[in-house]
Amino acid sequence: MTWQATALTLFPDMFPGTLGHSLAGRALERGIWSVEARDMRDYGLGRHRVVDDTPFGGGAGMVMRPDVVASAIADIDLAGRPLVYPTPRGRRLMQADIRRYAAGPGVVVLCGRYEGVDERVLEASGAEQVSIGDYVLSGGEVAATVLLDACVRLLPGVMGSGESAVEESFSDGLLEYPLYTKPAQWDGRDVPEVLLSGHHAAIAKWRRAASETVTQARRPDLWAAYRAGTGQDISRTAGPCGDADRLN
Amino acid sequence: MTWQATALTLFPDMFPGTLGHSLAGRALERGIWSVEARDMRDYGLGRHRVVDDTPFGGGAGMVMRPDVVASAIADIDLAGRPLVYPTPRGRRLMQADIRRYAAGPGVVVLCGRYEGVDERVLEASGAEQVSIGDYVLSGGEVAATVLLDACVRLLPGVMGSGESAVEESFSDGLLEYPLYTKPAQWDGRDVPEVLLSGHHAAIAKWRRAASETVTQARRPDLWAAYRAGTGQDISRTAGPCGDADRLN
Repeated sequence: MTWQATALTLFPDMFPGTLGHSLAGRALERGIWSVEARDMRDYGLGRHRVVDDTPFGGGAGMVMRPDVVASAIADIDLAGRPLVYPTPRGRRLMQADIRRYAAGPGVVVLCGRYEGVDERVLEASGAEQVSIGDYVLSGGEVAATVLLDACVRLLPGVMGSGESAVEESFSDGLLEYPLYTKPAQWDGRDVPEVLLSGHHAAIAKWRRAASETVTQARRPDLWAAYRAGTGQDISRTAGPCGDADRLN
Repeated sequence: MTWQATALTLFPDMFPGTLGHSLAGRALERGIWSVEARDMRDYGLGRHRVVDDTPFGGGAGMVMRPDVVASAIADIDLAGRPLVYPTPRGRRLMQADIRRYAAGPGVVVLCGRYEGVDERVLEASGAEQVSIGDYVLSGGEVAATVLLDACVRLLPGVMGSGESAVEESFSDGLLEYPLYTKPAQWDGRDVPEVLLSGHHAAIAKWRRAASETVTQARRPDLWAAYRAGTGQDISRTAGPCGDADRLN
């Protein structure tokens, strides 16, 4: 069964794009997943294939028309796949969403451009509105690339041994501890001695403390949740492949 | 002055990738920015160009060697550009970071693979460690694509009229209000009447209330900051181009 991605986009050439290479690219070649880019311009109105218009109520920029977007959606066989709309107005995309998408038959991603898509077609289609982060992109295609890359690596048979992450059950919403490899001495900097000791309990204790320190310093939101005992299992968690995930 | 991006990567074919199209692609052709992908394999050790090894202290997966990564970094003329390392262990990437990168001469992005990069080379290089979101990618290249897309759209001359966002100064950390365009009636769904009224104050009031509602529902973190009066200017803010940004 091929995991099927469809992108509704005004820039079909952006797919597979970056995903045509490396891990996702090899999986694409092997037929583990597929991606179809559907050009929404084909559903545009009139001789000029118009897809957008000015916003009601005023304001700069253009809004994608609900009739055009709805026609594009209607022409797709969703086949049980969720329709996902990456947007700054969405809830945060989490690894739990990625796992759910990866476990199903695929996803359809509606890639917004300009100011975004008319609200009514989002309501009517029941699109899942998710935000990949609090920064500004040129359009939904790059966000779709993130979403698809995250899904594809979880599909069975995609990850190699180099990619799979550590197995321990240290899954309490802390950031990962620092990593060290050979050489043990480099540029006047030594690997922390405990990591060379072979003393498993001491290593686990050191890593735990290091995780707490880095989480507190860099992610006060995760640290607060961890201290409150409501830390989510976002940091290192078993995916469909039985691996532990690495956040990016 | 061309804005210069350099990616340190094991998969140089992933650049420009998706960024070779659309807004970023046109800006690339016009020489507004450039991207060089430097293959870290070229700095690998021995006949097999080894770049990674097992983690000290145990655990699955591989870690990128500090000596190899340092050699790759040393061979680059940073020329005042920040070295950025996308990693799940970083602080959250924010639009303020993007603005700072875009305002400078460019960026160098270190793209991690496998479990990540040896901590010592991160310390020694002073790399900025940033996380694009709480989900798991196959490697740093897709995160670099997000970062570069977000920067490039802010470079002078890149955005067209369709892309530039609304101008109002509604910059208090709320999500944007819903957008509507023609037709006014579609599929039994009407545009909210106030938006057709031409009554600017009423429209502004409606939009403000709608922003508050959607923020409360979808982004409790932003809502709490807003209520506490510490809301950041992340939602709709003036960039280097004088535009208002749209989050993705």
